[in-house]
Amino acid sequence: MRILVLGGDGYLGWPTALHLSAVGHEVAVADNLARRGYDEEMGVESLVPISSLEQRIAAWQECSGETIESYVGDLCEATFVHQMVREFQPQTIVHYAEQRAAPYSMISQAHALYTQTNNIVSTLNVMYAIADFDRDIHLIKLGTMGEYGQPNIDIEEGWIEIEHKGRRDRLIYPKSPGSFYHCSKVHDSHNIEFGCRVWQLRATDLNQGVVYGADTPQTKLDERLATRFDYDGVFGTVLNRMVIQAVLGHPLTVYGRGTQTRGLINIVDTVECIRLAAEAPAGRGEFRVFNQLTETMSINDIAATIADAYPGACKIEHVENPRVEAYDHYYNVVHTALEDLGLKPSLLSATLIDHLFDVVERYRERVDQAAILPTVRWSDTESSLPRTDSALAPT
Amino acid sequence: MRILVLGGDGYLGWPTALHLSAVGHEVAVADNLARRGYDEEMGVESLVPISSLEQRIAAWQECSGETIESYVGDLCEATFVHQMVREFQPQTIVHYAEQRAAPYSMISQAHALYTQTNNIVSTLNVMYAIADFDRDIHLIKLGTMGEYGQPNIDIEEGWIEIEHKGRRDRLIYPKSPGSFYHCSKVHDSHNIEFGCRVWQLRATDLNQGVVYGADTPQTKLDERLATRFDYDGVFGTVLNRMVIQAVLGHPLTVYGRGTQTRGLINIVDTVECIRLAAEAPAGRGEFRVFNQLTETMSINDIAATIADAYPGACKIEHVENPRVEAYDHYYNVVHTALEDLGLKPSLLSATLIDHLFDVVERYRERVDQAAILPTVRWSDTESSLPRTDSALAPT
Repeated sequence: MRILVLGGDGYLGWPTALHLSAVGHEVAVADNLARRGYDEEMGVESLVPISSLEQRIAAWQECSGETIESYVGDLCEATFVHQMVREFQPQTIVHYAEQRAAPYSMISQAHALYTQTNNIVSTLNVMYAIADFDRDIHLIKLGTMGEYGQPNIDIEEGWIEIEHKGRRDRLIYPKSPGSFYHCSKVHDSHNIEFGCRVWQLRATDLNQGVVYGADTPQTKLDERLATRFDYDGVFGTVLNRMVIQAVLGHPLTVYGRGTQTRGLINIVDTVECIRLAAEAPAGRGEFRVFNQLTETMSINDIAATIADAYPGACKIEHVENPRVEAYDHYYNVVHTALEDLGLKPSLLSATLIDHLFDVVERYRERVDQAAILPTVRWSDTESSLPRTDSALAPT
Repeated sequence: MRILVLGGDGYLGWPTALHLSAVGHEVAVADNLARRGYDEEMGVESLVPISSLEQRIAAWQECSGETIESYVGDLCEATFVHQMVREFQPQTIVHYAEQRAAPYSMISQAHALYTQTNNIVSTLNVMYAIADFDRDIHLIKLGTMGEYGQPNIDIEEGWIEIEHKGRRDRLIYPKSPGSFYHCSKVHDSHNIEFGCRVWQLRATDLNQGVVYGADTPQTKLDERLATRFDYDGVFGTVLNRMVIQAVLGHPLTVYGRGTQTRGLINIVDTVECIRLAAEAPAGRGEFRVFNQLTETMSINDIAATIADAYPGACKIEHVENPRVEAYDHYYNVVHTALEDLGLKPSLLSATLIDHLFDVVERYRERVDQAAILPTVRWSDTESSLPRTDSALAPT
């Protein structure tokens, strides 16, 4: 199958491209290298050193004999997207190419505007390219569990059967996104669902939990194939960040009371979910939603699990929560669709965490401790006056 | 009360400003005059001649002795919005300033991108200005009944109490928008609801039905105070368009089978709804949604009502429906909140329609018959390759 991975230079896009190539698909990646630019803007870098996109692709050809084509360009430019789709003629498009950090979207007004326009425009351009060129192309779009918020009822997979005043309908699951970034993903979901109705597109929306892990069987083959590993307060996600704190002898910092719950998934399961979705595409006109997580844990439980696994002593420290969220909330997520397609979940275990400790030990001299703690508070807008007058990228 | 009306030069923004000024509020209007620009782009014009914004404001001062301040600028420019809010210090902001035609958003890819970025960015800029300057400012935002689509259960006012697997929650009503324009309004609703949670904003979202009517008591005082009256296939709405067809002896064109149902509201009730919402503001942190319509009718019923009221003979003709929508659908809309605040609905009647016939008779020589029929098909994207490479306005 010909698969185009948008955002194929990122933390998950790159390992996904390798996994799909390794199982025999013809893969191309597209990226505008914005993720590397955010590092420069924030003055941080990936814990694990990463090669350039060209070097990565060359290394993969050396290691596997397989070719990955690449397109460097911005999905906000409609003609770039149209030309790429016409040229590569994908059967599946995997779309990771969005600004994906909630804290980044809350830094300032300019960052909120950039996140929403970048994410919405790129996705609309991809939808139009599919609609113009070949409506059979299957769009696999990465969403987030953060679209749902913390409802007091079970979180179904994208749709919910509602009985109301004696009548029934199956409707889009109501969303309560937790940041302007999460809002942008809700917007994408509505646009894509509309595209499925009006143009009979095929779409799979993967509402992903927090991804943890540093590598996959392919990225481990060669140092040049490594994927990025973020631990900073803006792009770092909770589990990866706490592993670094443990290794450095820093207290594991829990935001607020820590009873808030998250869905989790390992990076190896993530790339496998994409393969499963690609090989069993949505039907024409179908807007299919999978909740892409394998387990749920509270922040306190994640911290305790890491503290238990770490050979040395670990302190756990509660710091002010920069986000606005509930602590003692119901959280029960349905996530059976990917298991039904064949996913064999790797649950969080001492082995997985031990491996992460090893990766961090290896690069511990690269950690910038000042970058670990959160600096962006959801309730503030002080820094929000835009640096530019337009809705363009704040860099 | 100091009230800033965004989009105050438009079909509804202008009569709203007059109505609020007439009842004693201190009113300012803001507009980038984009609506006049769309006329030039489409090569059409309002049936009723309209004066410039300056002339209108001067005429209102002559007629009433009241001053309306004006700000001409683009809400997509954050500094313009911030400066205006700091200078005028509104207690209420009424936000009509969006691209508001579903067919316009479906003309091409560039028009879809423009509609979504323009609407989302302008609303985010208004939210940030409120959050920075004074979180007590009440935001009254115009939404649309087209956000809901055609669910098989009752349409509640923005929120719905869901019982699911033995648990309950009150959640955002699930949306099924019918065009990229309607999607943009759903996006706005999510962004504003998030703003209410994270910044404790006060917001009222008015999901409006199709507005009909040509004037209000204030716009009738002087020719220079008239508001626009659109009948073209892009900006004209169903009832106004059919009245023109009747007067011209043209068949009343029903899109598709005509059994699809719409919510309706008269322009006089519309401006009164804004007053009622402004004078009874939402609480701090409250995202309040009202369904702003007074009755529902199928397209066939609207056509039949006009044909009955017209003194001459009227033919009704079914043409291909450019939209993608269901015909035989359930449609029961809750709309009690505005009546509870004191709205006395003016239902569609022979008197109201007779007055519209008079207005159209007066300006019948200005009608461009070629502009009446729909030209934009929802299922097409042929014309969708953008005229520019960016998400800027297509003009």
